[in-house]
Amino acid sequence: MTQAIERVELKNYQEIASDVSCELAASAIERDLKAGAPDEEIQLLRTSGLLPLVVPRRYGGAGASWAEALKIVQELSKADGSIGQLYGNHLNLTTLAEVGGTPAQAEFYYRETVDRNLFWANAINTRDERLKLTPEGDHYRANGVKSFATGVIEADYRVFSAVQEGVEIPPIFVIPKDREGLVYNDDWDNIGQRRTASGSFTFNNVYVAADEILGPPNNPEGAFGTFLGIVAQLTKTYIYLGIAEGAFEAGTQYTSKQTRPWITSGVDRSTKDPYILQHYGEFWIQLQAAINFADQTAQKVNAAWDKKDALTHQERGEVAVSVSAAKALATKAGLEIASRIFEVTGSRSTATQYGLDRYWRDLRTFTLHDPVDYKLRDIGNWVLNHELPLVTQYS
Amino acid sequence: MTQAIERVELKNYQEIASDVSCELAASAIERDLKAGAPDEEIQLLRTSGLLPLVVPRRYGGAGASWAEALKIVQELSKADGSIGQLYGNHLNLTTLAEVGGTPAQAEFYYRETVDRNLFWANAINTRDERLKLTPEGDHYRANGVKSFATGVIEADYRVFSAVQEGVEIPPIFVIPKDREGLVYNDDWDNIGQRRTASGSFTFNNVYVAADEILGPPNNPEGAFGTFLGIVAQLTKTYIYLGIAEGAFEAGTQYTSKQTRPWITSGVDRSTKDPYILQHYGEFWIQLQAAINFADQTAQKVNAAWDKKDALTHQERGEVAVSVSAAKALATKAGLEIASRIFEVTGSRSTATQYGLDRYWRDLRTFTLHDPVDYKLRDIGNWVLNHELPLVTQYS
Amino acid sequence: MTQAIERVELKNYQEIASDVSCELAASAIERDLKAGAPDEEIQLLRTSGLLPLVVPRRYGGAGASWAEALKIVQELSKADGSIGQLYGNHLNLTTLAEVGGTPAQAEFYYRETVDRNLFWANAINTRDERLKLTPEGDHYRANGVKSFATGVIEADYRVFSAVQEGVEIPPIFVIPKDREGLVYNDDWDNIGQRRTASGSFTFNNVYVAADEILGPPNNPEGAFGTFLGIVAQLTKTYIYLGIAEGAFEAGTQYTSKQTRPWITSGVDRSTKDPYILQHYGEFWIQLQAAINFADQTAQKVNAAWDKKDALTHQERGEVAVSVSAAKALATKAGLEIASRIFEVTGSRSTATQYGLDRYWRDLRTFTLHDPVDYKLRDIGNWVLNHELPLVTQYS
Amino acid sequence: MTQAIERVELKNYQEIASDVSCELAASAIERDLKAGAPDEEIQLLRTSGLLPLVVPRRYGGAGASWAEALKIVQELSKADGSIGQLYGNHLNLTTLAEVGGTPAQAEFYYRETVDRNLFWANAINTRDERLKLTPEGDHYRANGVKSFATGVIEADYRVFSAVQEGVEIPPIFVIPKDREGLVYNDDWDNIGQRRTASGSFTFNNVYVAADEILGPPNNPEGAFGTFLGIVAQLTKTYIYLGIAEGAFEAGTQYTSKQTRPWITSGVDRSTKDPYILQHYGEFWIQLQAAINFADQTAQKVNAAWDKKDALTHQERGEVAVSVSAAKALATKAGLEIASRIFEVTGSRSTATQYGLDRYWRDLRTFTLHDPVDYKLRDIGNWVLNHELPLVTQYS
Repeated sequence: MTQAIERVELKNYQEIASDVSCELAASAIERDLKAGAPDEEIQLLRTSGLLPLVVPRRYGGAGASWAEALKIVQELSKADGSIGQLYGNHLNLTTLAEVGGTPAQAEFYYRETVDRNLFWANAINTRDERLKLTPEGDHYRANGVKSFATGVIEADYRVFSAVQEGVEIPPIFVIPKDREGLVYNDDWDNIGQRRTASGSFTFNNVYVAADEILGPPNNPEGAFGTFLGIVAQLTKTYIYLGIAEGAFEAGTQYTSKQTRPWITSGVDRSTKDPYILQHYGEFWIQLQAAINFADQTAQKVNAAWDKKDALTHQERGEVAVSVSAAKALATKAGLEIASRIFEVTGSRSTATQYGLDRYWRDLRTFTLHDPVDYKLRDIGNWVLNHELPLVTQYS
Repeated sequence: MTQAIERVELKNYQEIASDVSCELAASAIERDLKAGAPDEEIQLLRTSGLLPLVVPRRYGGAGASWAEALKIVQELSKADGSIGQLYGNHLNLTTLAEVGGTPAQAEFYYRETVDRNLFWANAINTRDERLKLTPEGDHYRANGVKSFATGVIEADYRVFSAVQEGVEIPPIFVIPKDREGLVYNDDWDNIGQRRTASGSFTFNNVYVAADEILGPPNNPEGAFGTFLGIVAQLTKTYIYLGIAEGAFEAGTQYTSKQTRPWITSGVDRSTKDPYILQHYGEFWIQLQAAINFADQTAQKVNAAWDKKDALTHQERGEVAVSVSAAKALATKAGLEIASRIFEVTGSRSTATQYGLDRYWRDLRTFTLHDPVDYKLRDIGNWVLNHELPLVTQYS
Repeated sequence: MTQAIERVELKNYQEIASDVSCELAASAIERDLKAGAPDEEIQLLRTSGLLPLVVPRRYGGAGASWAEALKIVQELSKADGSIGQLYGNHLNLTTLAEVGGTPAQAEFYYRETVDRNLFWANAINTRDERLKLTPEGDHYRANGVKSFATGVIEADYRVFSAVQEGVEIPPIFVIPKDREGLVYNDDWDNIGQRRTASGSFTFNNVYVAADEILGPPNNPEGAFGTFLGIVAQLTKTYIYLGIAEGAFEAGTQYTSKQTRPWITSGVDRSTKDPYILQHYGEFWIQLQAAINFADQTAQKVNAAWDKKDALTHQERGEVAVSVSAAKALATKAGLEIASRIFEVTGSRSTATQYGLDRYWRDLRTFTLHDPVDYKLRDIGNWVLNHELPLVTQYS
Repeated sequence: MTQAIERVELKNYQEIASDVSCELAASAIERDLKAGAPDEEIQLLRTSGLLPLVVPRRYGGAGASWAEALKIVQELSKADGSIGQLYGNHLNLTTLAEVGGTPAQAEFYYRETVDRNLFWANAINTRDERLKLTPEGDHYRANGVKSFATGVIEADYRVFSAVQEGVEIPPIFVIPKDREGLVYNDDWDNIGQRRTASGSFTFNNVYVAADEILGPPNNPEGAFGTFLGIVAQLTKTYIYLGIAEGAFEAGTQYTSKQTRPWITSGVDRSTKDPYILQHYGEFWIQLQAAINFADQTAQKVNAAWDKKDALTHQERGEVAVSVSAAKALATKAGLEIASRIFEVTGSRSTATQYGLDRYWRDLRTFTLHDPVDYKLRDIGNWVLNHELPLVTQYS
């Protein structure tokens, strides 16, 4: 019975996502041009009811699995890659305390997210080591700078990693929006994902309570404690897929309605041009192959996630390999489609008003998050030498 | 209860297939070199029990779905593309009378296949119009030549298409092995799929009984009547996938055991070479993506098959599009892997004794069965114009 | 003796072009962002002395061959694709009257260009048929709209094609900048080539003198009369090559100075990363192959150009095939490099301040000028069937 | 005057090569099938007069430059990759003593080659260290095995490298055909280049005179002493190009004469099929780009060769980079064309009688000589870090 209800509700979320996607699409070109903070978009997400999507049902959330939730991420990304990224990150972060926190933290943050309909964002990127955490009595102080703080300016809960003297693994802490001493430097002006507000924050002696630092988790040596990084990699993959799908659909619309047949083509409509048909065939195959692969990988992520502390390092590594493959496929297909779509829409489709270039700019920017070359190497090392990828924030 | 038994049995078939595959692999290089008629291989298939795999359980068959059966085709093709093709064709043909015959024919041939453990082969290729069928009293006479008679020399039931004056759709007939007047011309000497004995037959006034001509089917206007062509296309796809998998596995074996590190690589084992790892990563991703896509398409084929006469032309067409995409993906991945695998095995791996080129020769030969270019066009026409592929023997 | 002087002077032009290129590069990112009319850039070209580059020496020009001049186009395009296009078009147009005009027109416009240091631009695009030319007494009136008027707002001589009732081949006319009745609609806002001011012009009963209409040429049936279209195609090719070279050089600068080694790469500098080295190797090979091919094709264009009215249709067609190939190669190499360069510069290189995306945007926009697909078909038709390309504005 | 004569003679060599190529083409398929020793082919080369092609005119040779000679290698390779390789190796080896020997050796071997119309072959491959050279009185003895002895069975002068205790750089020696103690193991049975007889030799205490060991050269520290390795790399490139050209031409012949139009193509001849035309266009562009690049690189090789001992390491390295690029381009274009040509010839073209697969087999085998991956790395290292390739036998 519960099962049946849950499905119905999930269907509701798909319909909601479809509506949100349509609303985002209507203003996406304009918002991309002006960049800036995604106030209105986060407001839209808040009122949509989509925020507690992956919070377990026992805490009042929708209880969607990752496989289900990532299709929602894809749907939003189809309209707007920036919002897809903000929402995908948010979903990952709402589960962060379950993976890396104490059981009490896990429960607390899950309930908070549901009860107060909260939005999460982060600047965990551990390659930036400028933010320092220092003990002071029973609490801590954070000072320094942290970059790539995607959407943190909009977040109710803000997650950061910092460097602490004498502590090997960088501590991660969660602070509320109204915490004093943080300044957003408003320095995100990049070629793509322009509405993510991914600039840097400066910390001026920011107070951090002891229990705002996540952990220790149940099983610090376990594979589950680092598994959210793998989920996050697949989440990015679905954002790429959504953007690629958006490019593909925008292309079909433009070609059908506006592209003129070429003068020596011998056909009276561009939609009969043998090469245009061929290219659409090629694009569609690539896109579907990448989507199918991601969907099957998402099932593996579901299964691994459900094992919780029983997840072995071998299982984690094998899922990581599959996620890396999904990411490499989506990256390749997405960039190819987003760049070559112009070849089936034609010269006039380069007018800024059509915004057809934003798909390439968004994908080009976001697929650089971490290099595909090392995903390929990791996969090769696994298939040839049966060695699992080194555990990092990215693999 | 039945369900449980069936699964166990299917598992048995997988184990059997794995054993047959191993046995074929052991002699594949040698048999490829000498080409000729696949006597021993068909004998192996006969004794394996794999012949009635897709015959429905009510006729005593194993009742495997297409999705299940095509994994067996893939498994055999991994060891030997020729036998994969012979077996795949056989599976398709065992169901031919259900699709294109009368209900009585369907039942008769299903039972025959099971009861007498029969092997099927055909020369249906309608582009070759040299075989003529002529009425003579209550029966017919066939005269002329028919090419691409893959494995017919070995078959218990032999299926041919012919041209008949005044009949628009070429009639298809089934005759037993001992029928007089057929001569195999033993003229198959091609670069790949060398053990398929795909040469031509000459018919000297061959007797064909009226009820050996298939049909009419239950619903001559229906979509199911031409759906076996789509199943056959997906069957070929799994043969490609199996061959590609064979190439990939042979490559990993060779690289691991024999390839020496390059003199300026800075590594002491080829399995640590950054470019070799990268290429294996690329190959694996392509292969897995193609396999996953085929597997999901096979589920659609299952669903369409189960609809029988209720299958609509729209449904048939959409499955055809998916099968075309699966085929294009497998073709591309397979050829890429089979040709480039040498780049990760190295110069000495070109010795004939290793037989590493047979994967490319088999794929290169068999992927030309019908052109991928027109699959891409059909897919493009569907995604852009929502038009279904023209129904032919190939689409 | 003359020969020796000419070489020295040409060397001067190369040095001048190098200086102009540096000056353009310094402000290219900023100018790309704001788009608008290229006032300052055209002023720079005017004072550089580069405008009469291809005017024959007997009229006082520098007498550069196309092969020499197009290297100058490439050099400017490396810094700024928009100015490369404006300058390339200008060079083509300074010779227009020799190809399509009467001998008197040829001499007049060559001398004018040199004596008054004039800049040329055009809107010849014959696919836009909205501009009508009507006889009125001994002169004509032009009314309507003409799009893609690249840089015409800046030009001293403005070239247009129009439709005239009862005249099969659209007449081309040349009018001076101060001619009354033209309005620039300032409607060029595209994703690339943003400083070309390629918007549309509206004509309100514009006076056109009879001798401002070009032609008839010496030999209206000859191949030379349509050969400038082929030169223009190769000119575009060099603009693509210059942009691609710009992307490549910007990439090497960024990687060398700013890209950090990946965390699992095992190297301490990004410039030692095996995959980054591999990609630079791939990019360089593609770029050099495209440049070399264009350079060899430019020699063929030189030879054909020098034949003037003796140029045969066969010779014209063979050069056209070579130019099509050069264009296809440059398009492919350029797009690949401009998009993938980010993979060797990394995530932070997507900041707008680095302007690394402008190479892709410029190439993506300008390579759509006419479809590469039909260049491939034309080449295939020539190599397989020995048929020359149909003569159009583009081939 | 001499100059004029030389050109005429070179033209003669081109005509001779064209005749030899035709003669080889007529039997190439048959000879490929049976493999074995190239007796008849070497006899054909001997009587053709092509053997002393690069011997300087002062010794009575034809005095062709490398750029001229490699076009002859390409012409022969078009018909038969095996003979292209044998002849290319021979040309390289006729100059070996000039590069690595004393002046007296240089003169002696040049004169011998011309006066006695000799054919050269070698097994220098230094990665095989099984052949040992030991001093014995005033001479040496060679014992052991040497693999990849391409065509040595046919050669009048046989060149080997060996390992000598206490000598760092492996000595290279030249012995005549009638030298006692060598046994050819007849163990070359590879998938391609089947008529090169590239098997191994066993040495049973073979006498080697002191002056049969090459060197020391004039300037042992100079760049010229290792430059023949670079010439050899470009020689291989021309063999690849010739094979690729052969595949392309065989394809056009087959498509024009035998390929049937596809049933849904809407055209009545395969030569009008839009996709077949497109693919031929793609193939031709790739092939021409690779040929052009090689031809321009050959000019650089000429210039470097003419510098002799004045050649600097910087100059040598830059030419090596260009040669590596030429080789990478030819490898990629060649493999693509040789594999994909079947897509424009169709299913029936896989019959063994057409021998269309030999191009892929030859290229696949010979392009593995040394890995392209490390050519790309070397090029990347040069363009990014301005470091020259490490000097090896291959770079």
